[in-house]
Amino acid sequence: MDYKKAAAHAKTDSFLMATLDEATRNRALEEIAEALEKNKEDIFSANREDLAAGADLAGPLAARLKFDEHKLEDVVRGIHDLTRLPDPLFRVQMKRELDEGLVLTRTTCPIGVIGVVFESRPDALVQISGLCIKSGNCVILKGGSEAKHTNKALFDVIHAAGVKAGLPSCFAVLVEDRAAVEELLSCDESIDLIIPRGGNAFVRHIMETSKIPVMGHADGICHIYVDKAADLAKAVPIIVDSKTQYPAACNAMETLLIHKDVADDLVARVLEASPVEIQVRQDEYKEFLDYIMTVRRVDSLEEAVDHINRYGSHHTDCIITEDEAACRRFMDTVDSAGVYCNCSTRFADGFRYGFGAEVGISTGKMPPRGPVGLEGLVTYKYRLKGNGHIVADYAQGRRSFHFRDLK
Amino acid sequence: MDYKKAAAHAKTDSFLMATLDEATRNRALEEIAEALEKNKEDIFSANREDLAAGADLAGPLAARLKFDEHKLEDVVRGIHDLTRLPDPLFRVQMKRELDEGLVLTRTTCPIGVIGVVFESRPDALVQISGLCIKSGNCVILKGGSEAKHTNKALFDVIHAAGVKAGLPSCFAVLVEDRAAVEELLSCDESIDLIIPRGGNAFVRHIMETSKIPVMGHADGICHIYVDKAADLAKAVPIIVDSKTQYPAACNAMETLLIHKDVADDLVARVLEASPVEIQVRQDEYKEFLDYIMTVRRVDSLEEAVDHINRYGSHHTDCIITEDEAACRRFMDTVDSAGVYCNCSTRFADGFRYGFGAEVGISTGKMPPRGPVGLEGLVTYKYRLKGNGHIVADYAQGRRSFHFRDLK
Repeated sequence: MDYKKAAAHAKTDSFLMATLDEATRNRALEEIAEALEKNKEDIFSANREDLAAGADLAGPLAARLKFDEHKLEDVVRGIHDLTRLPDPLFRVQMKRELDEGLVLTRTTCPIGVIGVVFESRPDALVQISGLCIKSGNCVILKGGSEAKHTNKALFDVIHAAGVKAGLPSCFAVLVEDRAAVEELLSCDESIDLIIPRGGNAFVRHIMETSKIPVMGHADGICHIYVDKAADLAKAVPIIVDSKTQYPAACNAMETLLIHKDVADDLVARVLEASPVEIQVRQDEYKEFLDYIMTVRRVDSLEEAVDHINRYGSHHTDCIITEDEAACRRFMDTVDSAGVYCNCSTRFADGFRYGFGAEVGISTGKMPPRGPVGLEGLVTYKYRLKGNGHIVADYAQGRRSFHFRDLK
Repeated sequence: MDYKKAAAHAKTDSFLMATLDEATRNRALEEIAEALEKNKEDIFSANREDLAAGADLAGPLAARLKFDEHKLEDVVRGIHDLTRLPDPLFRVQMKRELDEGLVLTRTTCPIGVIGVVFESRPDALVQISGLCIKSGNCVILKGGSEAKHTNKALFDVIHAAGVKAGLPSCFAVLVEDRAAVEELLSCDESIDLIIPRGGNAFVRHIMETSKIPVMGHADGICHIYVDKAADLAKAVPIIVDSKTQYPAACNAMETLLIHKDVADDLVARVLEASPVEIQVRQDEYKEFLDYIMTVRRVDSLEEAVDHINRYGSHHTDCIITEDEAACRRFMDTVDSAGVYCNCSTRFADGFRYGFGAEVGISTGKMPPRGPVGLEGLVTYKYRLKGNGHIVADYAQGRRSFHFRDLK
């Protein structure tokens, strides 16, 4: 397959996607949900092939790879939820009369072609495709190779159902060849945005080499700082949840910073309270994705904040405290997409924020930042309508702007 | 000067900038406006040095380089206008109770450290500094070398006044050494956003090589398409204005596409109506920045749109037509930040959109797109406050989200 050509084709199709009305996009989503249920046995069978080939994967990775009846129900429900969300396209964000008869309107429109490189989690393929259809974008999908059979089975069902419902043929393109990713990274004429998911060196490589804008995160090194004014009875379950509720997730806690005044018994209480065995390390600031965490004692909130801004990944960081001023200071100065107080870092997720679903979590500074749902998959254009208006009239004082907001 | 160290220092100072209240930032702006007026003779004298050294510059470039009483008045008025604009920081964009006692708030915050590489237009240095102060960002400034004396004089005045008013010492850093730009492009730990301005190979080089997110445009190849349903009497002044009102600007028209049915006399009428001599070229799709334009005859609106999407720079493109359906089709399918009807492309400017001023015009697909004012210089973070909330309770069905918007 010539992926450069496929990307160029997707670019052309993206102009058509941008003109489809909400009803057509929602109908396509319904068709896809129905087709997934109708073809579920083929999909489960493909998944069994992947699971057999990945028999030596660590527990959390195998859990991600699995695509069973339960995961199918989840993704189908997710698609139905998407159809009920308001249309992100053609929204008027601003309408302003610059002068008599000269009206500026800012309306949302799709980004165009989005390339998503995602981990070996087949449900991600369905969620990403759904979000891109709803937002009028074409999508180029590259999933983890451990899930290749499942991805192919899911893609074939989604693609056939989407085209049947009236989407253009390159509304979605599946990339099965890892080497092709390098090729696609140079297609800046055709691909408008790359979203790499999952934390690893390959994602970092994409972020460092592609000329195409990249949205996402290489690492999810989330911290919890237990302040001296913490309620330890509240702290323990939050720490256990943040570490163990799904350790393979990017929003799981990796580093626990504890104020020296409360450090003495906290770790012991956490280890005692945890339903699984958590290993504790020191001076290793990395994403474990497992029942392992780094623990470090700090002298002050400021030291904790400095540590987080220096060693963290600007994803999600939490303070446990009963001191309102400490909470505010932490939230104002920690330079992360999510700054939390007295709750689990695992809440950092598009679904839990009420976005319907997410295409990824961005740790960049520019919007969209944090969990990105539909809102982050659209952009806007400025439409200006006049009746012969020229700038010379304003430059020479014959006319002047009155900037009257109409919305 | 060690620019890597200066950038790191700016990064540290950016956390302080982010905590300054609106009154402090506005006071700094007022101090700067006052200091510019007080030191204007030094600035004019530095500008005369630059103008003497640039005696062989083309007319439009020399006009940009000049910094006289008139330009000073403009920038000082611009600063006063900025102080009256609403604070872009600490705005609550969203407030949602996810569940009882678990409240998510999205608030605006500065981006951090912004590097701006700009053309030889000294007024740009003042405008950019003002926008960055108002939005709580630190700024690293690299202006065109033709304006080096003027830039240094302006920077010294702005820096001293800003620090006197309470801004941290690296709220602004002036880069005087062009070679240092390469060094700064690798400071992705310290610099959050690069804004290159002016259309040239150097800007394209930045966009292609930096790991830091880039906002801007390499080219401003704007089109006007004169539809078969155009009112030619309206078309002529719009074309003349778009080409000649300020040909050195990125929003000046470079290519005129004319429907074959109206092509015969239009060019002659344009050339006759123009107060200056416009040269007409064919098959050369580039940014002339001069009284030169490409003219091309097309068979249909669709051919015009294809041409614009293929050869344009996604900046600003206009249709001249009295046909409402043609206007809509053009606006929906032209993939540019600005899509216009029956008005000059020269309106593509932050001031003319009512944004107060602009830091640049972005031709990327992701927001901020088009003219970028204060709104494009802030980002946001998600603040989540709970009272011991953990995800396991929701995953296991003991609790559920109710997503109640509080704003």
